[in-house]
Amino acid sequence: MLRVAVLTLFPEMFTGVLGASILKRALEQGQLAVELVNFRDFATDRHRTVDDYPFGGGAGMLLKPGPLFDAVEAVRSRMPGGCPRVLLMSPQGRVLTQGLVQELAREREWMVLCGHYEGFDERVREHLVTDEISLGDFVLTGGEIAAMALLDAVARLLPGVLGNQASAHDESFSAGLLEYPQYTRPAVFRDWAVPPTLLSGHHQKIAEWRHVHALYRTWARRPDLLRGYPLTDADRRWIARWEQGD
Amino acid sequence: MLRVAVLTLFPEMFTGVLGASILKRALEQGQLAVELVNFRDFATDRHRTVDDYPFGGGAGMLLKPGPLFDAVEAVRSRMPGGCPRVLLMSPQGRVLTQGLVQELAREREWMVLCGHYEGFDERVREHLVTDEISLGDFVLTGGEIAAMALLDAVARLLPGVLGNQASAHDESFSAGLLEYPQYTRPAVFRDWAVPPTLLSGHHQKIAEWRHVHALYRTWARRPDLLRGYPLTDADRRWIARWEQGD
Repeated sequence: MLRVAVLTLFPEMFTGVLGASILKRALEQGQLAVELVNFRDFATDRHRTVDDYPFGGGAGMLLKPGPLFDAVEAVRSRMPGGCPRVLLMSPQGRVLTQGLVQELAREREWMVLCGHYEGFDERVREHLVTDEISLGDFVLTGGEIAAMALLDAVARLLPGVLGNQASAHDESFSAGLLEYPQYTRPAVFRDWAVPPTLLSGHHQKIAEWRHVHALYRTWARRPDLLRGYPLTDADRRWIARWEQGD
Repeated sequence: MLRVAVLTLFPEMFTGVLGASILKRALEQGQLAVELVNFRDFATDRHRTVDDYPFGGGAGMLLKPGPLFDAVEAVRSRMPGGCPRVLLMSPQGRVLTQGLVQELAREREWMVLCGHYEGFDERVREHLVTDEISLGDFVLTGGEIAAMALLDAVARLLPGVLGNQASAHDESFSAGLLEYPQYTRPAVFRDWAVPPTLLSGHHQKIAEWRHVHALYRTWARRPDLLRGYPLTDADRRWIARWEQGD
């Protein structure tokens, strides 16, 4: 079982996501346990203050170090393995990839800090956080939705959460090509027909069609992914044709 | 006001996120309206089926085209501008950036389709969707959490949702450097002191310190971002020193 603690000022944001779809299933099956910790509970003053003005001036408020350090230490004391790994969702982190998701799915426990306001006191980053993870080059109000994305991506890789079929399906993504086009009934929908090869029942032709279309889509949309992909000679000939506008 | 329709099989996943933080504020202020549409309501059979097997065989189920086309058309008929833009959250799409977020924040209306199962019938992509958007190179179970990320990122850019201060703050991200380190009280926390410059009250020195640290962090963590950044001569001298291990 993977144990995850989420440190957030908005635990109620997680209710819908934890109660549906894959996360619900992983929690019900006992493959995943998620503890939501409101680090405001670790504020020490009467007003439960968690933020303060930045030294040197500037816009917005920062999260104070004290409540976060105390919350992390409280979680660590409860986790069987002491929860060494503390993730921070931040646009300054290492960009999330499926490889990192796989790595986190193999762990036994970790926690994730969700920021809010304009950011954290830097000492949180320097002395508490072990991994900074970014969803990408865009700005979210807080780390909560980013943490949900991480939880969802990890949960579906935990043993038994998805069926074997669907897990196998992932491998094609991990292998580095975008997905080939897929079609379901009806064979003709509003005058748009399914490609005849897919209806042929000829398994080898179908496999070839899918491979070439996955390759084409990757070449057209995400050529950067091809750098890490082991192209065959046949693949190279296809790409040469497309590059000539064929 | 920006009108957004979200087409999903799991509208209840959105409750927590729409009821807290920035999305709550944008909705309450009337800068944003979000309509959750369960496209299962557009299934035509007794069992309300929305998925079917892929032609040509393979793992998993695909979303059928019919209910999605009908749901999109129903939403369009209700939207004042006919809602031409239909987004699909998919790992095959254009990777979400702050530039695309800004573009979507300037629109009047759009809708976003959230996938589930193994994907969509390709005719949805070919004939219904206008923009495919990816959060990044990782696999989510469905498009819901990706749509939440998009909604959050867009909502905070809508006029009046954040204060002016915080909006101004974004510009530094948009300008292409990672954030400089920030500190708040106490000045010494567990033996870790705030850098003295930030306590000096000398505004020009503080501004310089922040710029150089933002530059350093970007150089160390995300050198790719510097390609699009207008470096000054002084910036180049700093980078040359860091490259020499100084």
